[in-house]
Amino acid sequence: MQIRVDAREAGKPVSRNIRIVVAFDGTAYHGWQAQKDKATIQGILAAALHKLTGEEVQLHGSGRTDAGVHARGLVANFRTTSNIPAPAFVPALNRLLPPDIRILSARRAARDFHARISARSKTYQYQIYRGRVLPPHFAREYFHYPYPLDLDAMLQACRLFAGEHDFASFAKATGAREKGSRGTVRRILRCELRQKGRRLILTVEGTGFLHHMVRNMAGTLLEVGRGRIGIPRFRLLFRKRDRTLAGFTAPAHGLVLLRVRYSRARD
Amino acid sequence: MQIRVDAREAGKPVSRNIRIVVAFDGTAYHGWQAQKDKATIQGILAAALHKLTGEEVQLHGSGRTDAGVHARGLVANFRTTSNIPAPAFVPALNRLLPPDIRILSARRAARDFHARISARSKTYQYQIYRGRVLPPHFAREYFHYPYPLDLDAMLQACRLFAGEHDFASFAKATGAREKGSRGTVRRILRCELRQKGRRLILTVEGTGFLHHMVRNMAGTLLEVGRGRIGIPRFRLLFRKRDRTLAGFTAPAHGLVLLRVRYSRARD
Repeated sequence: MQIRVDAREAGKPVSRNIRIVVAFDGTAYHGWQAQKDKATIQGILAAALHKLTGEEVQLHGSGRTDAGVHARGLVANFRTTSNIPAPAFVPALNRLLPPDIRILSARRAARDFHARISARSKTYQYQIYRGRVLPPHFAREYFHYPYPLDLDAMLQACRLFAGEHDFASFAKATGAREKGSRGTVRRILRCELRQKGRRLILTVEGTGFLHHMVRNMAGTLLEVGRGRIGIPRFRLLFRKRDRTLAGFTAPAHGLVLLRVRYSRARD
Repeated sequence: MQIRVDAREAGKPVSRNIRIVVAFDGTAYHGWQAQKDKATIQGILAAALHKLTGEEVQLHGSGRTDAGVHARGLVANFRTTSNIPAPAFVPALNRLLPPDIRILSARRAARDFHARISARSKTYQYQIYRGRVLPPHFAREYFHYPYPLDLDAMLQACRLFAGEHDFASFAKATGAREKGSRGTVRRILRCELRQKGRRLILTVEGTGFLHHMVRNMAGTLLEVGRGRIGIPRFRLLFRKRDRTLAGFTAPAHGLVLLRVRYSRARD
């Protein structure tokens, strides 16, 4: 016979799993992941949580973002034994954080919720400005690309990204940190390209992404738009598994992590 | 008999009048007007023009903007004897300027064109964010005002701004730098309030503005929205000429100079 002992009864403090949604302007940061002697989103958030709870909090993010990349809704979770009500983490953390990092919401999550492992899909946006001069209010979040583009060809290529493909040609050339268990096959649920005046917005939702994958997709679409990569060669990219055949890596500051979706309603 | 001598014939260098359109993120600057030992838009532009032309250029702006105020299309003009083609000032100046100040266009203007004196109207936008948490990508240009607002009352008050009124109640409390010749009567051609999700955008076009006028109009509308100033009291503001009766001065970073209009087609 097994006897289940409630943590409270056993005198151990009850730990809750808290899920937060984070938005940040990545301009000033060396990406999400904590690094020694470098300002990172995870590092700054963990320091604020330590100040608030007194605990060494383990913060799990829905994924790493590179230096300069922005987020409107990155999801993270952490366990705490503090008795701060979950929604109170929003104002309490925001008071401690710089204005370019904001907690948008906080709530108690299921015991087994993990921001990265439980994620069903992530949606990224890549933002391009096509006008001759980049207006200052777009400078932080738009890649300036003032060249003539064949939008029809780009739309055609964009549609070809949808579905399950081997994205080896779009993975970061050096290093293979995400190529391990699942290989380089990824599933793109949605790939859209919209023109709004002089802005060109690429929106990509996928179940997972290789390192630099969205930036390489954006750079490749731009080379399709300039006529440097034709549709036949574009189709070959999924088969050739050769990074050198795809387009350039579009710069980090044009990339925004829009949202992360989870399967279960309570997540 | 009068003999008209062309400057060229007289051996004097020909001076051209150049009209530029400037956009800037005002966050890092002490406003438009040049000040000793302070970073201002006019000061930085004049230094760039000096570097380019070797001349001590007199730069006339369409109007001063306060520290922290932004612009999408401020107009300025200057005379130069340099032989740089007018459109070439765009890339040449942008190479010398920081990315938060951009020249959007440059062209030769009529001899008597003056960016301030020739202006027929200016359009400002005041930007408010109503959500509970201010997202980082709105932090530089939106005033965070997360309180319940009676939008109907605000729309009613907004309509009352249109037309010619004595705006003494909306002029900066101390100092009267713009109250001189024309007094405090100003003509508002258009006053619109639009809600876009959690954003509230006030757009005001007028033939001229007193110092702090748009910010005081925005602050007063917000106090109308909160029920602190009723419509009857609001109507009295134009007659009472008393700054203490109007609302607060909304902060500078929410204000954007959108565009300046001129009467003649060639301006």
